[in-house]
Amino acid sequence: MTKKRILRVVKIGGNIVDDASRLDGFLATFAALPSPKILVHGGGKIATQLAEKLVIPQTMIEGRRVTDAETLCVAVMVYGGLVNKQIVAKLQALGCSSIGVCGADGDLMRAHKRKHASIDYGFVGDVETVNEPLIDRWLGQGLTPVVAPLTHDGQGQLLNTNADTIAQEIAQAMSQAFHVELIFGFEKSGVLLNVNDLSSRIPVLDFAAYQKLKSRKIITEGMIPKLDNAFSALKKGVRKVIIGQAENLMELVEGRDGTSIVWEEN
Amino acid sequence: MTKKRILRVVKIGGNIVDDASRLDGFLATFAALPSPKILVHGGGKIATQLAEKLVIPQTMIEGRRVTDAETLCVAVMVYGGLVNKQIVAKLQALGCSSIGVCGADGDLMRAHKRKHASIDYGFVGDVETVNEPLIDRWLGQGLTPVVAPLTHDGQGQLLNTNADTIAQEIAQAMSQAFHVELIFGFEKSGVLLNVNDLSSRIPVLDFAAYQKLKSRKIITEGMIPKLDNAFSALKKGVRKVIIGQAENLMELVEGRDGTSIVWEEN
Repeated sequence: MTKKRILRVVKIGGNIVDDASRLDGFLATFAALPSPKILVHGGGKIATQLAEKLVIPQTMIEGRRVTDAETLCVAVMVYGGLVNKQIVAKLQALGCSSIGVCGADGDLMRAHKRKHASIDYGFVGDVETVNEPLIDRWLGQGLTPVVAPLTHDGQGQLLNTNADTIAQEIAQAMSQAFHVELIFGFEKSGVLLNVNDLSSRIPVLDFAAYQKLKSRKIITEGMIPKLDNAFSALKKGVRKVIIGQAENLMELVEGRDGTSIVWEEN
Repeated sequence: MTKKRILRVVKIGGNIVDDASRLDGFLATFAALPSPKILVHGGGKIATQLAEKLVIPQTMIEGRRVTDAETLCVAVMVYGGLVNKQIVAKLQALGCSSIGVCGADGDLMRAHKRKHASIDYGFVGDVETVNEPLIDRWLGQGLTPVVAPLTHDGQGQLLNTNADTIAQEIAQAMSQAFHVELIFGFEKSGVLLNVNDLSSRIPVLDFAAYQKLKSRKIITEGMIPKLDNAFSALKKGVRKVIIGQAENLMELVEGRDGTSIVWEEN
């Protein structure tokens, strides 16, 4: 059996994307990370600001944004266009040959419009398939995919999809062929034992420890869905999920910062 | 010597992109065109309309739009995002696996900011290089590139570039490996002997005939730059340039409509 190569899937959110100097700093580190690697980005405030300027009303149901046709256009322009292509141009300048794509490109990620008994979320997609051979070919050509949080339904419709979900689905799909590390950029330095004490970061969290901390209510509500998703990804073949500050990407990868989430400690 | 395969590079402009039903009709025909093929699209009125809504003033110098930083953002959002990804999603639905890219993706097209003695056109790029091996690999994988009229300077800056130029540069670059047919979507059915008589279409125009028609002032000002560019492309290895209505793509390709421009008639 040949040893699997490490593939890193890094997801960054609005706190990086919205801040040009933080984004530049992050991209310099990301470019220096050994290949193969994949970057998944969210959109941040730019889409909300553009929707405001265009006087497109934002509808929220139970804390989730409803994506009507106009809001989808804004997402496609900002996530699929502006943010995606600017990141790609910057990575090229840093010597990292990247390719900016969304789920429609090469049928990368196919989804269906979310079905919900009572709420119509609009043009929001739940992922069905990831085109793993396509990603594999791009990686084999030395290209770093930069993925915008958009999918398509195979019938001509683009759909908005959460960037965390995109990153997790790609990480899971690539786990057959690679030893995948899934890195989530986060506002804090990692999972904390005490939310008010930034030095209480847990360096490594395994499933048994997580269960204990959860039952003792040390890990609280806000973190639980994120960690449940992380362990779900591990169950589906991802080797390690790392949560921490994206600017410290090298330290996260080297285990010197953030929280590494693993099924069980070696 | 092995016979070169035919590669068709099709450019569509605003008259198609701006009209959803014409675009759908065109894409159905384009999807049915045998591979390998490449689609290059302009942006049409959507970018101008968005710039108006965002109250970005449009500066024109000698009939050319000046691309300031805000206008570039609009171009990246509309050309690189909205138009590009919508076309890709629609082509996927039609069974044509496409990949939507701009010049920054995979370092596809590198350009430099236009230098001009007296006019600053802003973020406008003149093409330096086309990454022909990358296009070749995509085509080899059965992917149809859908190219937005944007380039990059290799130093992190995206640049606006005319879609006709993008199509021509790609066609020329691919002529080493392929028998390239470059098809320009046009508002008329082709080059006309009499601009007021739509039935006076010239089916095939070679260089000698062009020189004669030009000296007799039958081919007039508006067409001359287009035709000069076409013959320049032929000189650089493109086998045939076809001008005609994009909706009639199959007829154009089969020589039943439009004007086929060739160096000399067989």
